[in-house]
Amino acid sequence: MGGIFRSALALGLLLTCASAQAQQAPASSAETNPAALGWMEGAPPPEDRMVRQTDGSFYQFPRTRWAFSNMRSLFPTTNLWHGSGPPSPLPADLRDDLDDVTFLPIGSDKPMRWDEALRASYADAVLVLHRGKIVYERYFGVTGRHTPHMSFSMTKSYYGTLAAMLVEDGELDETKTVAHYIPELAESGFGDATVRQVLDMTTAIHYSEDYNDPKAEVFAFALAGGVFPRPPGYSGPDGYYAYLPTLGKDGEHGSQFTYKSVNTEVLGWIIARVTGQNPITVLQDRIWSQLGTEDDAYLLVDSHGTGWAAGGLNATLRDHARFGEMMRLGGNFNGKQIVPEAVVNRIREGASQADFAKAGYETLPGWSYRDQWWVSHNRNGAFAARGVHGQTIYIDPAAEMVIVRLASNPQAKNAYIDPVSLPAYEAIGSRLSSTE
Amino acid sequence: MGGIFRSALALGLLLTCASAQAQQAPASSAETNPAALGWMEGAPPPEDRMVRQTDGSFYQFPRTRWAFSNMRSLFPTTNLWHGSGPPSPLPADLRDDLDDVTFLPIGSDKPMRWDEALRASYADAVLVLHRGKIVYERYFGVTGRHTPHMSFSMTKSYYGTLAAMLVEDGELDETKTVAHYIPELAESGFGDATVRQVLDMTTAIHYSEDYNDPKAEVFAFALAGGVFPRPPGYSGPDGYYAYLPTLGKDGEHGSQFTYKSVNTEVLGWIIARVTGQNPITVLQDRIWSQLGTEDDAYLLVDSHGTGWAAGGLNATLRDHARFGEMMRLGGNFNGKQIVPEAVVNRIREGASQADFAKAGYETLPGWSYRDQWWVSHNRNGAFAARGVHGQTIYIDPAAEMVIVRLASNPQAKNAYIDPVSLPAYEAIGSRLSSTE
Repeated sequence: MGGIFRSALALGLLLTCASAQAQQAPASSAETNPAALGWMEGAPPPEDRMVRQTDGSFYQFPRTRWAFSNMRSLFPTTNLWHGSGPPSPLPADLRDDLDDVTFLPIGSDKPMRWDEALRASYADAVLVLHRGKIVYERYFGVTGRHTPHMSFSMTKSYYGTLAAMLVEDGELDETKTVAHYIPELAESGFGDATVRQVLDMTTAIHYSEDYNDPKAEVFAFALAGGVFPRPPGYSGPDGYYAYLPTLGKDGEHGSQFTYKSVNTEVLGWIIARVTGQNPITVLQDRIWSQLGTEDDAYLLVDSHGTGWAAGGLNATLRDHARFGEMMRLGGNFNGKQIVPEAVVNRIREGASQADFAKAGYETLPGWSYRDQWWVSHNRNGAFAARGVHGQTIYIDPAAEMVIVRLASNPQAKNAYIDPVSLPAYEAIGSRLSSTE
Repeated sequence: MGGIFRSALALGLLLTCASAQAQQAPASSAETNPAALGWMEGAPPPEDRMVRQTDGSFYQFPRTRWAFSNMRSLFPTTNLWHGSGPPSPLPADLRDDLDDVTFLPIGSDKPMRWDEALRASYADAVLVLHRGKIVYERYFGVTGRHTPHMSFSMTKSYYGTLAAMLVEDGELDETKTVAHYIPELAESGFGDATVRQVLDMTTAIHYSEDYNDPKAEVFAFALAGGVFPRPPGYSGPDGYYAYLPTLGKDGEHGSQFTYKSVNTEVLGWIIARVTGQNPITVLQDRIWSQLGTEDDAYLLVDSHGTGWAAGGLNATLRDHARFGEMMRLGGNFNGKQIVPEAVVNRIREGASQADFAKAGYETLPGWSYRDQWWVSHNRNGAFAARGVHGQTIYIDPAAEMVIVRLASNPQAKNAYIDPVSLPAYEAIGSRLSSTE
């Protein structure tokens, strides 16, 4: 990629992106409550309360705590219609005792309470479903029941499920190569990768997603998609589909799991080619509007109207919960089979734990990644959609539980967030299983 | 305003904006059907099928025929939530005979049919309510029942109604000056104008809205709001509230009606100051979510999160019809009094026809403009919300009729569109009144 925008990046973007990680002790959840800090309030808002896309401030903590619930006011987006008819019911049977649930964070000998964990994880909204009933629901800061919140990489699990549905229906052949479906990628590193390898992220692409590395390709990727502000004179690729062909290969496909968001953009492109439709429309028609969602969702789009498949979905807490509950129930929800049960079963089975282990995720021992879902292989069979800064749909089939957490943690990587989150989810599952 | 961007404007923007008017015989409605032309279709769309904000092509006919139904994929926007509960019922009693209604266009001796008129006006969606029932409903091109469509200056009537509600409630004093509410405008041309003069557009501001004049202030206005693409090195005002203080005075306030969109931006600013809320939120809470709307609407926003009060609302055909029907019924709709009846009555009474006549609207003899509504003073007491390129909510109390038309006419000015539209609406009203 050209050096023109790389140098501009160095000026500001990286500082922006890496600021959270660089801070040793970021301000607390209470200190950064976006409702109290008054971002974008006033007519006009004072300059020091502004949140902009054009200067990258939307991605600076603590402005992120406002921005992640207001992405559409900063970016072009495309709608996912909630569908006709009333929302599918989510009856409530609230349990105040869950705040008292305690657990040991990984690597700690100091017990922590569930409500403490929510503060520690900068939660913006949290919901727990047990047997389809809402047992816990909280909103914080500027995030309300009808506020779509940035999902980041949870988006991948929606696209992965969609692609797996196309495989199940026979519309997509997972043994075929990327080049078969996308001739534009034949000469790229993706050319000889199979659709299955893209789905499970076992492709070997020369692409780094390390936010702490100034040369990481993730920055060029975000500039091409218009997520990060482009410096004056930017002459790099315009749009995701313009960027993907520039990527080379780095090793052999199929040898190990390596988390690279560009796989999901390729998946979106494949969905587009196979269906002849915009993947956003396919997602809306086959999943979103089928769930009996309560609100519209939306996707950030690039200049070509291409949705950011790897991270651009924004949806409400309850609607994510509907998606999670549908997956828990083997695809059957809202009175219909929305996703074929075989698709859900294969996701729950997961992929090679050995291939996953090579990626070195210390907080995820024994896990695997299949169809863009994270699979725990623990005794409860938990699997999850996960996004940076603490986004999760955590599905625990044995505990008959779905947890959705939307957050604006100053840490991007879940590796820093999991030590609190994962034991907390397991403890909630245990409490629900033991007190029926 | 600085000459830096004025010169850049001359390069491209004006050609863009004025192209429709310059064309002697634009392509027909059928020839420019956006569904057939495939704008933004394909992965990625071919370059000659692209519609962008950044190069101004979204405002080039016939791309406008796609863009006006997809504004949110080109611009940052803020949501107007449809509210909880089911949509308010709009029962249907369709009448195919309305296509046969004929009328004489102004200045023509050749009768025209209603369905011909729709084609001639590049309609994207049309609905006729009679006594609250849908008697006619059509969607064309890429505009569907759940597609929010650009309203342009119909937005003003929503803001005007809202401001009039605040006057009625005593929250806003229409006899006070703009400077009283917005000190930032004290030194501008608006400073000594009253709120009433802003509401009725009888302010005397040095501002031209003539799209055919390269020096017209409307271009600087659109650049400040981010509607038109900013040339490289743009150093003009950023945001509507930054632009308004730059405007001077031109004559004396209160002497005549002069249509200047900036009045509505001032009105939005006043609503913000009086309520302490974003006017978009006020509009959502006091009107949009009260109507039993079926879908969310949205507003284009500038970099400060300020909605484009003069023209940025996008909503579906049926939801505009609900707003129109509420106004026809004196503010009472969906089982409640949404707008005080006194507010609606004063709008229907209109303002000074003499002041209006000075503006020289040949197609609107005897009309007036009050609270951002166009009032016909005809024997049926019709009044309307109107936007460029053919947007209308036309309310005919005597015929118990509301017509909503969303369109993408290559002509911006309604002066070119009215000769067909206004006699057509009157003829539909006559047919409905005579065949009960």
